[in-house]
Amino acid sequence: MEYGAQYRSRNICSHKAYVPGEQPVSGGEAIKLNTNENPYPPSPEIKNAVLGELESLRLYPNPPAYELRDCISTLHGLSAQQVIVGNGSDDILNLCTRCFSDENLKVGMLDPSYSLYEVVASLQGSALIRVPFADDAFSVDPESVIGSGANLFFITSPHAPSGREYSVDCFRQILKEFEGIVVIDEAYADFAEQNALCLLDEFSNLIITRTMSKSYSLAGLRLGYGLSSPEVVSVLDQARDVYNVDRLAQVAASACLKDRVYFEKTRNEIIKERERLVSKLNEWKWETSPSGANFVFARPVNANGATGPAVAKDLFEFLASRRILIRYFPQHERTASHVRISIGNRQDMDILYKRLMEWIHQEQQ
Amino acid sequence: MEYGAQYRSRNICSHKAYVPGEQPVSGGEAIKLNTNENPYPPSPEIKNAVLGELESLRLYPNPPAYELRDCISTLHGLSAQQVIVGNGSDDILNLCTRCFSDENLKVGMLDPSYSLYEVVASLQGSALIRVPFADDAFSVDPESVIGSGANLFFITSPHAPSGREYSVDCFRQILKEFEGIVVIDEAYADFAEQNALCLLDEFSNLIITRTMSKSYSLAGLRLGYGLSSPEVVSVLDQARDVYNVDRLAQVAASACLKDRVYFEKTRNEIIKERERLVSKLNEWKWETSPSGANFVFARPVNANGATGPAVAKDLFEFLASRRILIRYFPQHERTASHVRISIGNRQDMDILYKRLMEWIHQEQQ
Repeated sequence: MEYGAQYRSRNICSHKAYVPGEQPVSGGEAIKLNTNENPYPPSPEIKNAVLGELESLRLYPNPPAYELRDCISTLHGLSAQQVIVGNGSDDILNLCTRCFSDENLKVGMLDPSYSLYEVVASLQGSALIRVPFADDAFSVDPESVIGSGANLFFITSPHAPSGREYSVDCFRQILKEFEGIVVIDEAYADFAEQNALCLLDEFSNLIITRTMSKSYSLAGLRLGYGLSSPEVVSVLDQARDVYNVDRLAQVAASACLKDRVYFEKTRNEIIKERERLVSKLNEWKWETSPSGANFVFARPVNANGATGPAVAKDLFEFLASRRILIRYFPQHERTASHVRISIGNRQDMDILYKRLMEWIHQEQQ
Repeated sequence: MEYGAQYRSRNICSHKAYVPGEQPVSGGEAIKLNTNENPYPPSPEIKNAVLGELESLRLYPNPPAYELRDCISTLHGLSAQQVIVGNGSDDILNLCTRCFSDENLKVGMLDPSYSLYEVVASLQGSALIRVPFADDAFSVDPESVIGSGANLFFITSPHAPSGREYSVDCFRQILKEFEGIVVIDEAYADFAEQNALCLLDEFSNLIITRTMSKSYSLAGLRLGYGLSSPEVVSVLDQARDVYNVDRLAQVAASACLKDRVYFEKTRNEIIKERERLVSKLNEWKWETSPSGANFVFARPVNANGATGPAVAKDLFEFLASRRILIRYFPQHERTASHVRISIGNRQDMDILYKRLMEWIHQEQQ
């Protein structure tokens, strides 16, 4: 028997940890288009915010991060009681399962989507219900969510890895009938044309999660938040580590949220590069999903006009050997023939296009 | 029925959240001697470390915080596989209950000690066994821990709120016979004469937790770590949020750990002020526990020579009304007649002494 196995909790015995996308130790040399990071640094306002806080690090943070909650609630036109701040949105997702799932209260997710939902459900000992998409375009059938039997349901919107957006009407239909808590994970919503914020007024069992990892370039700082009814926020707050968000993260996040000019500029650049990538791929007859995110999901076509899992794998490996990292997802039939490319800056994307052209025109063995 | 109650997990329904010590919003005006913070700012080396990392915040952190683990393992003469890093040591304590307790595997603690143990046990749905101290000096009877029936046992050493230190022999006696995991929470060990590090070689079921909140002045940054056998660390790592420690915390913590000169200097100042406080209080015939921490636990004596819960409360309120915050613990008979005073800098301690003299010499009503 493995050492100490007899002391382990039931849930941890059967638990599989989350496996993050590859992070090369020396990030500078590779072009990282594999974990949907932002190609631009965070707002320069962060510098003074952080420097002004260093002396105060000897003191504990404000436990609820009041100023940051205020800043977020103002941005979205909500009350501060509708906001909870986390050490990354993963922290909020974890609080959702701790508060609204257990051995009897099941967790639901659309399959495939963010694999962390399975991890936080498993840590809590909750059964996971995988609801398939309605078609290859990752359409959601509201009835399949409503009738899933889950008490807590996670929906990524825009969806990852496809980038597909869903309409407010689709969510409204689900929320009207779903018996339980619905989490709409809007990690990528800043790059989309629509979001579910307007539904917070209508449904108190809706939680929207956001992250500052993507559109605010703060993946390295761990700052996410949840938006919901004051009732649900107060439940989540009970399970929250009281000092979950540190002083530097609190002030840096506020500074970045307030710098709307920088936010708009970098977001628009990314959207522009995304559309340029889609045009290129479509020129080459690669199928792409319309993307509301900072990545593009596409089905590569090789020199022989072939597609499929082997072609996707070949492209992934071709680029990796040339120090360009992208993602492919061989685990699921709906994703196995595709690759996901995060949007980089113009220079990196130009290098990508060169390499893609080389791959397309290489001799097939 | 309260809204949404039917959707809540069993554990959260009965859960009571942790209540932290008071944090005045404008910290500058009050003298804060209530939450064992360090009176000095963190090492000045933190500035360049943090500034050098701002541009990289767009990228996710290194998930296991390898460099920081290396730095910590070198400091303690351990292997990197024996170290896990957390978002504060509270994060590590939470991982301990997630991995080694559940509805059947109970959690034990000495009562009274750090109230967070109860919180993390309750979140996990674990029964809590409160083991009383052997006497008013907060002595630990090893047999009472061994026979407690807990699978996971938390011991704070030096103890809080008393500051009492325990011998390596006491722990060895417990570890030899205890069937389960023992956590020795050494949050204050840098201010003590002894610690349990040498026992890591002997017992693979020992976890030692440390925090950088106290001796490294980083309460606001949230950095704690656990030391154990590679086997136990690998279990804790499975439940860890993969990005639990952000980039700024990783580099800032490394910089502070490496600045040994600053660490020694500030620690020695605090110990000197602690001994000065103990001398003063003893002059006034206040009973004090010998302290291995950055606070002193003392039983105040008023002008009439009286002691007791009412006297402790009176002193607490007298100082609070003069903007000096200390702690008192009316909930437990072993602590109700005492106050806990964190060690401040010389200037703040001098102001404290003045106010204490005023309290001692005031007319009693």
